[in-house]
Amino acid sequence: MANTITSLFNIKYPIIQAGMVWCSGWRLAAAVSNAGGLGIIGAGSMYPAILREHIQKCKQATNQPFAVNVPLLYPNVQEIMDILVEEGIKIVFTSAGNPATWTSFLKEKGMTVVHVIANTKFALKAEQSGVDAIVAEGFEAGGHNGREETTTLCLIPTVKEAVNIPVIAAGGIASGKSMLAAFALGADAVQIGSAFAVAEESSAHPNFKERILSSTEGDTKLRMKKLVPVRLLKNEFADAVAQAEANGANTAELVTLLGRARAKLGMFEGNMEEGELEIGQVSAMLNEIKSAATILNEIWDEFLVEKDRLSALKF
Amino acid sequence: MANTITSLFNIKYPIIQAGMVWCSGWRLAAAVSNAGGLGIIGAGSMYPAILREHIQKCKQATNQPFAVNVPLLYPNVQEIMDILVEEGIKIVFTSAGNPATWTSFLKEKGMTVVHVIANTKFALKAEQSGVDAIVAEGFEAGGHNGREETTTLCLIPTVKEAVNIPVIAAGGIASGKSMLAAFALGADAVQIGSAFAVAEESSAHPNFKERILSSTEGDTKLRMKKLVPVRLLKNEFADAVAQAEANGANTAELVTLLGRARAKLGMFEGNMEEGELEIGQVSAMLNEIKSAATILNEIWDEFLVEKDRLSALKF
Repeated sequence: MANTITSLFNIKYPIIQAGMVWCSGWRLAAAVSNAGGLGIIGAGSMYPAILREHIQKCKQATNQPFAVNVPLLYPNVQEIMDILVEEGIKIVFTSAGNPATWTSFLKEKGMTVVHVIANTKFALKAEQSGVDAIVAEGFEAGGHNGREETTTLCLIPTVKEAVNIPVIAAGGIASGKSMLAAFALGADAVQIGSAFAVAEESSAHPNFKERILSSTEGDTKLRMKKLVPVRLLKNEFADAVAQAEANGANTAELVTLLGRARAKLGMFEGNMEEGELEIGQVSAMLNEIKSAATILNEIWDEFLVEKDRLSALKF
Repeated sequence: MANTITSLFNIKYPIIQAGMVWCSGWRLAAAVSNAGGLGIIGAGSMYPAILREHIQKCKQATNQPFAVNVPLLYPNVQEIMDILVEEGIKIVFTSAGNPATWTSFLKEKGMTVVHVIANTKFALKAEQSGVDAIVAEGFEAGGHNGREETTTLCLIPTVKEAVNIPVIAAGGIASGKSMLAAFALGADAVQIGSAFAVAEESSAHPNFKERILSSTEGDTKLRMKKLVPVRLLKNEFADAVAQAEANGANTAELVTLLGRARAKLGMFEGNMEEGELEIGQVSAMLNEIKSAATILNEIWDEFLVEKDRLSALKF
C-alpha cells in the first residue's frame, strides 16, 4: 500500500509541503506532518538561532516526520547543518547549490537527503552525490527557478528516465488533478508550495495571502533572469523589474533595484507594492484560506476521485 | 467507446496533429488521418493556390476526416475561407485572432470549428462565438505562444472548469505519459506538434528535423515577447534575438532583426543558423525520425500502458 516516497519518509500520503521563505515555519510544517504529509521548515529566511527555535517547536507540535529545507548558497550553511545534526533532524531537502558539497556529510549523520533540481544534468549530479530522492521543479513553480525554463510536463518524464532514485514533482501542482498528472508523468510524489503558502498555518503576511487569492492568470512572471530567475507576482516592484529588463538593465542595475530584504518586506511584512512576492503560477487557481490539513485532504480526495475517473475512461 | 472529440471529428483516437507552418502539408495530414488521428494542413505558410493544391492532394490520399488550420491574422483570410468552402472542408481550426470574426461564417457552411487559445479569457470568448471545441495551448508549445506564459499543467484545469465545450490540450505532449497527464488534467484530447514535425511525412527540411532530434534541455526559449511571443530553437538567429532583447531592443528593432521569410529559410529551406526554427520544449525528448503512423501508434500504446499502470497504483 506504500510507495517509494511514503516508505522513504515514513509518511501516509505522497504529498510534501515545499520549504518556502517567510511561509513555512514550524506551524505549517507541523500541521502538514500531523495531517499525514511531509512538512518542511524553510531555513532560507531564518537566522540560525531562529531555525533552531522552529525545529524545537516543530518537534513539540508533531511526533510525525518532518524535514528542513536548506538553500546551499546561503552564507551560514555550516552553522545550519550543525544545528540540524544537534537537533536530530532526520530528513533534509537541499536546494540552490551543489549537492556534492553536503550530501555525504548529511548521509554520514544518518539523514535522508533530497535535493531540488530543475534539469536532468543536476538530477544526475544529485543522484551521483548519493541523495535518496530528488525534487524536480518546473518553470511554473514559485520562487527561484531553473534557467532552462522547462515546464513540469516536460521535465518529469525526462528526469524520471535519467535517474534511478525516486522523483518528487514540483511546480504547478495544487489539486488532485495536477497531482494525478504528475503521477501520470512518472512522479513518485508531489511537492506543493503555493497552495500551502495560503494555509492558515503559513506565516505569510495576511496581505500576501489575500493578494495570492485575488491573483489571476498571467499575474506571475519569471523575472531577474540575469541574476537568479525568480517567479514574481505582479506589483509595483515586479513592474519596475519588468520595465528595467525591457530596457536592457544589466546585472548590477538589477541588484540595485532588488535591494535588500524585499522578500521579507512583501511576504512577511505585508508591503504589497514594494515587496518581492514569490509565488507559483497556480496562485491563479487558489481562492480560499484553509487549514493545511483541509488542503492536504482535499487534494488527496480529488486525486483518488480523478484516478478512478481516468481508470474508467474507455476508448 | 468514443469520447467527445473522437465523436465530434469521427476519428479513432483522440490525437490531433497540430497545424504547423512549413511542416504540415497534405502528406503529413493524410498520414495522421489514415492512422486514425486527425491530420491538419497548416495554411499559415501557404499561398491560397498552394493551400488548394494541398487540400486536393489530401483528399486523394485519405478518405478519413482531416482539417485545415487558419491563422486569422493572415492577410488573405477571406480568400482562404472561400477555398475551404469550395473544397468542402468539414473541420477548421482557427488560431491567432478573434474567433468572433469567422466562426459564424464557417458554422453556417456546416463546418466543425475549433479555436486555439492560451488563456481562459479567450477560451470563454471562443465558446461564446460558437466554436465546437477549443485547443488550449501551454507555454511549452512551439511556435507562437500566449503572453501569460501559462504552462499546460496550469492552463488545462482552469480552462476545462471555465468552458462547457471539449478541451484539446496542447504544449509539451509527445508521449503516452504526457497524453495521460493531459487527460488527468481533464483534457478530452491532445494536439501534438513537435513529435509530428519530425515525422517522415513532415515537409520540414531534413536539416531542421536533425536539429530537432539533436536538441537538448533548455535549447528552446520563448523570444520576441515585445512582438508576438514565439518559441525558438537556439541558433545564431535566436542568439542574436536573445542578445538584442537583453540589451533592451524595441519593437522596431526586433521587426528589423526578424526580417522576412525567416521561418521558411530555416524550417523549409534548411538554413540552420540564419533561419527561424519554431519548435516546442519536447524537442529535447525526440530522438528518431519515424512515420506518422508509428508516432501515433507508439503514443497511443504507451497511453494505454501508462493508464493501466496508474490505475493499478495503490496507496
